[in-house]
Amino acid sequence: MKRICVDMDEVMADTLGEHLRRYNDEFGEAVTREELFGKGLWEVVSTDRQSSLRAYLDDEEFFANLPVFPGAREVLESLSQRFDIYIATQAMSVPSSFRAKYQWLQRHFPFLPPSRYVYCGDKGILRADYLIDDLPRNLMRFEGTGILYSAPHNMTVSGFDRVNDWREVAEYFRDKA
Amino acid sequence: MKRICVDMDEVMADTLGEHLRRYNDEFGEAVTREELFGKGLWEVVSTDRQSSLRAYLDDEEFFANLPVFPGAREVLESLSQRFDIYIATQAMSVPSSFRAKYQWLQRHFPFLPPSRYVYCGDKGILRADYLIDDLPRNLMRFEGTGILYSAPHNMTVSGFDRVNDWREVAEYFRDKA
Repeated sequence: MKRICVDMDEVMADTLGEHLRRYNDEFGEAVTREELFGKGLWEVVSTDRQSSLRAYLDDEEFFANLPVFPGAREVLESLSQRFDIYIATQAMSVPSSFRAKYQWLQRHFPFLPPSRYVYCGDKGILRADYLIDDLPRNLMRFEGTGILYSAPHNMTVSGFDRVNDWREVAEYFRDKA
Repeated sequence: MKRICVDMDEVMADTLGEHLRRYNDEFGEAVTREELFGKGLWEVVSTDRQSSLRAYLDDEEFFANLPVFPGAREVLESLSQRFDIYIATQAMSVPSSFRAKYQWLQRHFPFLPPSRYVYCGDKGILRADYLIDDLPRNLMRFEGTGILYSAPHNMTVSGFDRVNDWREVAEYFRDKA
């Protein structure tokens, strides 16, 4: 069976939503996804507030209750009949997230055994046929076929196959095996 | 540069030593490495004590203070000039170890950035040229060249390139690039 690696943040989980919620709460702002078209949250936040953005991520609870993107569970469960699915997340840059990410995957994706989870840094280390990821730099390092999962920050990026949601992921793999 | 993945337990770290120490302490035994020639600790311990073996691993402190095998640091630091070194550990089967393993690597191998750490389950997911590991099943799944690092339990295994210590690792890679 061919192998698909799937990124967690901004692909399976609405990480940006939680990041925005905490930022808007702390600073009384109302930054929306729409304002982040083509930009990362780090790019629109003033320098003196950057440490708060990082502090949210370093909170061990940050990743615990992230919403699952619609369809992620159903589509991955279906694809797992025809592909070997691995979850590959750059957790090494946020070590406080290790436990919450593990528990989140067990809770929402119980059909995937923990042996299919990969915490890494550089995604060039993954031996797989496909990688679904929102970060162009991860797809560049990956040696298989990279699939860009749309997120506000990557909307102006070209050069990759792109999927906008989990329905499109299912469609992308419909005739593949 | 070619890429070398290195397992942690029983390759970089003396995990068995700590496991034996805790077991012998609890049960007043004196099991030695020599008695484990060709066998895992799990195979020589009676069924009613297996849960203790597992409980030692599940202690968050178990991995925190493991001794580094002689030469591991010096040889890896030297090899990192000519190879891309990644640390690949099956941490997903012991999630309580995540934090201690990360801190242990930072403390003893500061020349390797966390982006080179990989916590995985199935080592078939690694895209690398070499994997140094004490477990034959990990080497079987790996698609590059597997190098068996000697440990008591694997002394009767054949069919892999074998290294007995870190001096032999250095020797193995002396003329490779």
